[in-house]
Amino acid sequence: MASLRLAVDAMSGDLGLRSSISASLNALNQNSALHISLVGDEPAIRLALAEKTYDATRLQICHSPDVVAMDDIPSKTLRYKKNSSMYRALELLRDGDVAAVVSAGNTGALVAMSCIILKRLPGVSRPAICAPVPARNGYTFMLDLGANITCDAEQLYQFALMGSALSKALDGHKAPRLALLNVGAELMKGTSLVKEAAELISADSRLNYVGFAEGNDIFSDQIDVMVCDGFVGNVALKVCEGTANFIRDQLKARFKQSLYGKLTGLLVKPVLSGFQQDINPERYNGAVLLGLNGVVIKSHGGSGVESFESAIHQAARAVRSELTQLIAAQINTTES
Amino acid sequence: MASLRLAVDAMSGDLGLRSSISASLNALNQNSALHISLVGDEPAIRLALAEKTYDATRLQICHSPDVVAMDDIPSKTLRYKKNSSMYRALELLRDGDVAAVVSAGNTGALVAMSCIILKRLPGVSRPAICAPVPARNGYTFMLDLGANITCDAEQLYQFALMGSALSKALDGHKAPRLALLNVGAELMKGTSLVKEAAELISADSRLNYVGFAEGNDIFSDQIDVMVCDGFVGNVALKVCEGTANFIRDQLKARFKQSLYGKLTGLLVKPVLSGFQQDINPERYNGAVLLGLNGVVIKSHGGSGVESFESAIHQAARAVRSELTQLIAAQINTTES
Repeated sequence: MASLRLAVDAMSGDLGLRSSISASLNALNQNSALHISLVGDEPAIRLALAEKTYDATRLQICHSPDVVAMDDIPSKTLRYKKNSSMYRALELLRDGDVAAVVSAGNTGALVAMSCIILKRLPGVSRPAICAPVPARNGYTFMLDLGANITCDAEQLYQFALMGSALSKALDGHKAPRLALLNVGAELMKGTSLVKEAAELISADSRLNYVGFAEGNDIFSDQIDVMVCDGFVGNVALKVCEGTANFIRDQLKARFKQSLYGKLTGLLVKPVLSGFQQDINPERYNGAVLLGLNGVVIKSHGGSGVESFESAIHQAARAVRSELTQLIAAQINTTES
Repeated sequence: MASLRLAVDAMSGDLGLRSSISASLNALNQNSALHISLVGDEPAIRLALAEKTYDATRLQICHSPDVVAMDDIPSKTLRYKKNSSMYRALELLRDGDVAAVVSAGNTGALVAMSCIILKRLPGVSRPAICAPVPARNGYTFMLDLGANITCDAEQLYQFALMGSALSKALDGHKAPRLALLNVGAELMKGTSLVKEAAELISADSRLNYVGFAEGNDIFSDQIDVMVCDGFVGNVALKVCEGTANFIRDQLKARFKQSLYGKLTGLLVKPVLSGFQQDINPERYNGAVLLGLNGVVIKSHGGSGVESFESAIHQAARAVRSELTQLIAAQINTTES
């Protein structure tokens, strides 16, 4: 397989080097065609690599002294964080030195910098953030998850085209089942925004539009791509995470409550840990920024090693499947 | 304790008489001050009551031959369903024959009929649907859950006043902690709608406003009332239910997968059933329609007996705590 070089923003995210370094080395180990440019503070990276074993021919360090903080105001980072690992990684992608960027940093800054440095694909009105959410058929791709807190119908239509292209590229679905998130499945339900978007989407025969869907339908096995504006998508994703964490904590507390609970808790551990793997958000990490000249993967801000590594593999898959070219083709060819 | 009469819409909801009758009889059994008017098709109700034992002096039947279907178009029911159990129950409340209405029927129709028959409280722009969502502090009251799919900032401010009054009335909180649902906690985040609402809410010193909150914060122990528009609220609630059902199904599947899983599944049953009680939506049933001249409780469409009974008790508590008067006072007194 032809080799493939990715840039890893090594400094950003809640854990910074503590997750990015081990994740990169593990990914190199897993995929022999992979090359990685670690972007960040060179002395700190060298220190973190000091006692590790790895194939040095496939690992490059690209020095950038600055870091975008998680609470930096995105628009200001464009001006004051040009020496940051995030900015530099995107420049490497723009210049063709790498085929994709992976970062666990500030989402707003990553979107803003990507728009300025990489530019949007011709015809794309706004980029969108798309991530897999665990569901009965494996997962559902959901977008937008917060890049655009207000959207018009044309933008939702473009999200449908881009999400559909992503599902085709990464999952090989020929006709991904696409739905619009709404407060009911009936045609009369919803805001004028979703009704207008439904008209645009259903008129495009290249899309396999299955209609309006409700919040609980994200988890069904009937939908591959769920489209919504970034405000609703962001709230929905966080409610999903919040519910899962709440349930996990309640369950743990129950097993600690009594001696009986403690004993059965021990017995049940292998079953529960298998289950936790099923719904582990770490396994589903790697949101994709869609609509840009290049593959940009946003790893969860709190990504641990395993999680960050999934995001790197997600980036490699997106490059291999020619995601960017697929989206460009979807947006720019009008239906015949 | 002084007696209290409620109207139960006995025909609506997915289960109709199959849940409303037993729920009503159980509630009468639990609360000796309670009187119930069962509104619906008299012959069918008599048949359903035939072999039950109950205190007949506290149960009245109020005949109405028609039923609002779950898929009836709300605006049309105002014209064509005047002989329905839902319409008649609201008339009983308007005429002072009962102190509250409980219905598991079509939400849109219940909101539309309530606005026409009961009217809104003076000064209230739009009624809102508010329900308790399980959380680390017991539950969080969330509104609006779908009565208003688009809102302006003034309406969100009124929801804050009404939700806060509900929390005071039902939970006895002196200063309920109130948050606005947003895509981030920082002041700069969010749509102009939530920013304007935040200004109105934070300027009212009667409200204990704690700021913007995110989707996962619904489950924290730091918030008593969460305010959002009805589109976002409806999606959030359904995502929460969908996540919980998905996790339950995955867990069940795990326990069925192997002999070890099956055996430990048996042992763990008492612990898991206690846990399921903790997060059981049946226990948290009873959404309140706020902003009307009278107490209207919306039970979940699929309410079983236990769930419907909680909604009846919720109605009784709301009447006892003078919820309607409290809300009227909040809306109509400007801050001094």
